[in-house]
Amino acid sequence: MRIVLLSGGSGKRLWPLSNDTRSKQFLKLLRAPDGSRESMMQRVYRQIREAGISAEITVAASASQRDSIVSQLGDSVKSVLEPERRDTFPAIVLASAWLLTEERCSPDEVIAVLPVDPYTERGYFETIARMEKAVRDGAADIVLMGIAPTYASSKYGYIIPGPGKTAEPYPAERFVEKPTEAEAEKLIERGAMWNGGVFAFKLRYLMEIARRYVDPADYSGLLARYGELPKISFDYEVVEKAESVAMLPFDGEWKDLGTWNTLAEEIPEVMGNAVAGEGAENTHVINELRVPVVVLGVKDAVVVAGSDGILVTDKRASAKLKPFVDAAENHPMYVERLRPMYEERRWGSFKVIDYGKYSDGVFSLTKHLFIEAGSAISYQKHSLRDEIWTIVNGTGALLLDGHVRNVRRGDVAYITAGMKHAIRAVTDLRFIEVQIGEHLAENDIERFEWEW
Amino acid sequence: MRIVLLSGGSGKRLWPLSNDTRSKQFLKLLRAPDGSRESMMQRVYRQIREAGISAEITVAASASQRDSIVSQLGDSVKSVLEPERRDTFPAIVLASAWLLTEERCSPDEVIAVLPVDPYTERGYFETIARMEKAVRDGAADIVLMGIAPTYASSKYGYIIPGPGKTAEPYPAERFVEKPTEAEAEKLIERGAMWNGGVFAFKLRYLMEIARRYVDPADYSGLLARYGELPKISFDYEVVEKAESVAMLPFDGEWKDLGTWNTLAEEIPEVMGNAVAGEGAENTHVINELRVPVVVLGVKDAVVVAGSDGILVTDKRASAKLKPFVDAAENHPMYVERLRPMYEERRWGSFKVIDYGKYSDGVFSLTKHLFIEAGSAISYQKHSLRDEIWTIVNGTGALLLDGHVRNVRRGDVAYITAGMKHAIRAVTDLRFIEVQIGEHLAENDIERFEWEW
Repeated sequence: MRIVLLSGGSGKRLWPLSNDTRSKQFLKLLRAPDGSRESMMQRVYRQIREAGISAEITVAASASQRDSIVSQLGDSVKSVLEPERRDTFPAIVLASAWLLTEERCSPDEVIAVLPVDPYTERGYFETIARMEKAVRDGAADIVLMGIAPTYASSKYGYIIPGPGKTAEPYPAERFVEKPTEAEAEKLIERGAMWNGGVFAFKLRYLMEIARRYVDPADYSGLLARYGELPKISFDYEVVEKAESVAMLPFDGEWKDLGTWNTLAEEIPEVMGNAVAGEGAENTHVINELRVPVVVLGVKDAVVVAGSDGILVTDKRASAKLKPFVDAAENHPMYVERLRPMYEERRWGSFKVIDYGKYSDGVFSLTKHLFIEAGSAISYQKHSLRDEIWTIVNGTGALLLDGHVRNVRRGDVAYITAGMKHAIRAVTDLRFIEVQIGEHLAENDIERFEWEW
Repeated sequence: MRIVLLSGGSGKRLWPLSNDTRSKQFLKLLRAPDGSRESMMQRVYRQIREAGISAEITVAASASQRDSIVSQLGDSVKSVLEPERRDTFPAIVLASAWLLTEERCSPDEVIAVLPVDPYTERGYFETIARMEKAVRDGAADIVLMGIAPTYASSKYGYIIPGPGKTAEPYPAERFVEKPTEAEAEKLIERGAMWNGGVFAFKLRYLMEIARRYVDPADYSGLLARYGELPKISFDYEVVEKAESVAMLPFDGEWKDLGTWNTLAEEIPEVMGNAVAGEGAENTHVINELRVPVVVLGVKDAVVVAGSDGILVTDKRASAKLKPFVDAAENHPMYVERLRPMYEERRWGSFKVIDYGKYSDGVFSLTKHLFIEAGSAISYQKHSLRDEIWTIVNGTGALLLDGHVRNVRRGDVAYITAGMKHAIRAVTDLRFIEVQIGEHLAENDIERFEWEW
């Protein structure tokens, strides 16, 4: 079996901590067994291994997530990066094609696809092992996991089992997406389960479907013609059209941590430099900034301070966050915001600490960059901006137009537009970068090869 | 008449906007008549002039407030700066001695002392004009303003008028400081008024009292021996011991804006880059940061985001802020905080945008400095730190060890420890300063003269 972890879109539902490059599954907020913090991505990866599943894991993700995946899961986990965001059907097809043609998996290999963000327990992963066996035994073309509902939710899709059969795997007769609560209640009485978005199938089966859109459906072909794949979910395009679908039930803890209200249940009450009191009951405070947060007397709330902004929300209101973040980002005082204020990269991380837009149309942007010992920023040049670097801690090797020199705390590098540059950290390295130019976009970059 | 404005201590009751150099009276939060924002200091200064009082105004303040006073009231207002914080009696004595010996006021000059922070109206200032006349007419040695109470408060001092007299000014018979609410009710029935801390007296009268402590009680003598003056309030040391005290009543709007709850009544609901919704009723949001603040569903609260920290408080709890700020500043994640994160200076302002403490005991601190066109930072040197300046906007003259050169956007100055330096803004000037050293204290500074 091969496991494909679907690393979904960025979303704003966990703003201000989630942003375009830091999707919610990378936020290190959950309690890890050793007392430290882990992300949803790290948790699901750990749980797969703890359940005794040794299958190789591939992450299907967007290009902007690549650095976060490497930094959180290590180099041994492979990623298949979508050239653009489409939907789950194209993403799963691309990952499957990669397994077939690049990884040379057998067409009979069983693929289990699971989302990266449910908060669940060991039994969930043991069910995946049973799903593999069901596919291998030929129980159905596609085997789904059915999550035992805990209430009549109108948020989920439901799998309705066929009549008669009393042993696993159950045939899946039909699907109902987001019913009303009344409908959901009736479905549950008939034995319907939530569709948790976990699928198992043989590689051969999916590639035949893919061939209807791109032929031959090999990896390089699909990558080049990715835009021709329909923007449609795997459920609609594959599951609901399939002739033979089975379902294996899972009756354990399973939660969607998609809002601050649900996430708050699984994280400590206070994280970071914060104090709360005077009756601030059932209130969670998460502070990623270095200045303190003080919360007094406000109950049933979530307070989140991050580099991108500050959220104060009543827990019940937290699901309605998105339009307000959109409004905040369209605020007249917000025009100068150019990009996410904090990003994790393969080589470390950076924080935007200052920015300005001046009356002559020139911008400045100041960052604090952290590069882990042994890592390096790629060799690159910018056409439209100068950069002034001041090393504040650590030692490194600075590469400027083909010349390498050692740098340490207090050294300054003046990198004019057009100058090729890179830096490698010998010890953990921190520097302040002041960018000045008429255009400070991230895409003003040309990359070059360099052998350190 | 001369007016002495008492510019009190810093305090933490309006944290995170107030700090050691930015006392609450300098926060530009109040609605000015022209629609802009003004500080308590600017408001009281404007109201004195609008009431037709042309008396020269002297501000009694601490040294750390000098730059804020000049930047908010202009160069024409004079300040008397205490060498150390003691209490209102020493501060008023020092200001009086300055008026007598430095400003050469007559010993018969009437001095009116008023606090800078009450939120009040024109009649208050007209009462001061009547107080001057009462002192000049010899009604009493000291004339106080009595504020007509609006409720039986246990927070204020009360002035109890003597019996019999039915015309102004009333004799003040005795004083009761912070009675219980029940006592306050009885006092109010007997005609007691709140003591608003507004005093008028002849210069001669106070200087005789001062002479008991320091003789001769001239300005330079008092300045040198300021530490010998008792740490006591003017009320206790002068008013309560005086033989002849009269009171003039004021029956208009008068409020102490000392907590976020009371201040919120006089400021807009949303200031800065912020959006509120989903039932965030009666909630005030003040954002001095550039990233957005989003508030959802939290009622009756005040949310304040500033460079020094973030406060989320139920309005009723806001008076209890101080111990929590103390706790936040003793938080284990707070040890690296070196100083206020935002300061206004005579020449402009600066913001600390990054700081770090490294394992070898070295610190770095990065600031964004703004210097107003025509202003200059004093010529100075530091012994224990290097500074690297990168100009991001504007033009200026940079002075390094006696040599001046023109600088503009993109220029970098490397100022090593021991190097004398200054900069003058030709146009509004902004630069990023990276400080690196084993000791980054503000007092590592030696100042020099320079004629630009």
